[in-house]
Amino acid sequence: MTTLDDLNDEEFMQDALDEAQKALDEGEVPIGAVAVKEGKVVARGHNQRRALNDITAHAEMQCLRELDPDNNGLYLEGVTIYSTLEPCAMCSGAMIHYGCSRVVYGASDLKLGASGSRYSFLEDACIPVIKGVLDDKCRRILYGFFEAELGKPSKVWEDIELE
Amino acid sequence: MTTLDDLNDEEFMQDALDEAQKALDEGEVPIGAVAVKEGKVVARGHNQRRALNDITAHAEMQCLRELDPDNNGLYLEGVTIYSTLEPCAMCSGAMIHYGCSRVVYGASDLKLGASGSRYSFLEDACIPVIKGVLDDKCRRILYGFFEAELGKPSKVWEDIELE
Repeated sequence: MTTLDDLNDEEFMQDALDEAQKALDEGEVPIGAVAVKEGKVVARGHNQRRALNDITAHAEMQCLRELDPDNNGLYLEGVTIYSTLEPCAMCSGAMIHYGCSRVVYGASDLKLGASGSRYSFLEDACIPVIKGVLDDKCRRILYGFFEAELGKPSKVWEDIELE
Repeated sequence: MTTLDDLNDEEFMQDALDEAQKALDEGEVPIGAVAVKEGKVVARGHNQRRALNDITAHAEMQCLRELDPDNNGLYLEGVTIYSTLEPCAMCSGAMIHYGCSRVVYGASDLKLGASGSRYSFLEDACIPVIKGVLDDKCRRILYGFFEAELGKPSKVWEDIELE
């Protein structure tokens, strides 16, 4: 079944990339996420680990937190999460707790990715996952950050899939 | 190698059970956690999903948050996390991000457990895991809660290992 969300995956990934740009502007590793329901962005988040001094403040977690959960575990039914980078185990686990219906991501993370690379946690929970949407842009903003920050290809750089 | 933490696993699990009791007193699902370094409890947490209206406010996450991370990803070296229930994927993933050195838990969670039951995230990350410490007490407080709340054995009840 083709849904409105399917049709706009690239558009919404661009919104997630705009969030990644906010992270970059704030000196954070540039990763962004948005939550979409019924064709509209209902929450946004960007990586704020440094600013908030909170190692769990990944883009996806910040996005989920903005949704102000009501704790019934199903209130995100119908919500698609868009993330510029493949979600890690922590973020994937949170998405399952929140009852997200669908996940779309850009770049794969060969080291920590839990949605197809290292683990397939979302798939195992029967949550549909779409990979590689605007992945070139999603990788490029990360590579640019690490190159500027470290002056050379980093271990993180190597762990993000190059095609 | 026997460490001080090894010797006190039951004592520290009792501290985690005291945290679970706090959750129970507040009407939450009774799960508790403590973080221990050099033989001393350095942080505590209990499940506060309802009180904080935050579906990620698991006992282990609250414990980790209390440690006020400085974002270097290694600052929890030497820290053991004690949890009354087997950590889920989100909490296990967070422990890996935080660089925890060791995890001890009580009751197994056959449905969501990511430290030996459904997944083995911590083991895969080479983090030593000790299971079943005071597991009878850890299960009993959970069973009591669900029985009182639901009036009958619940799905959650069935998912927590009975021996």
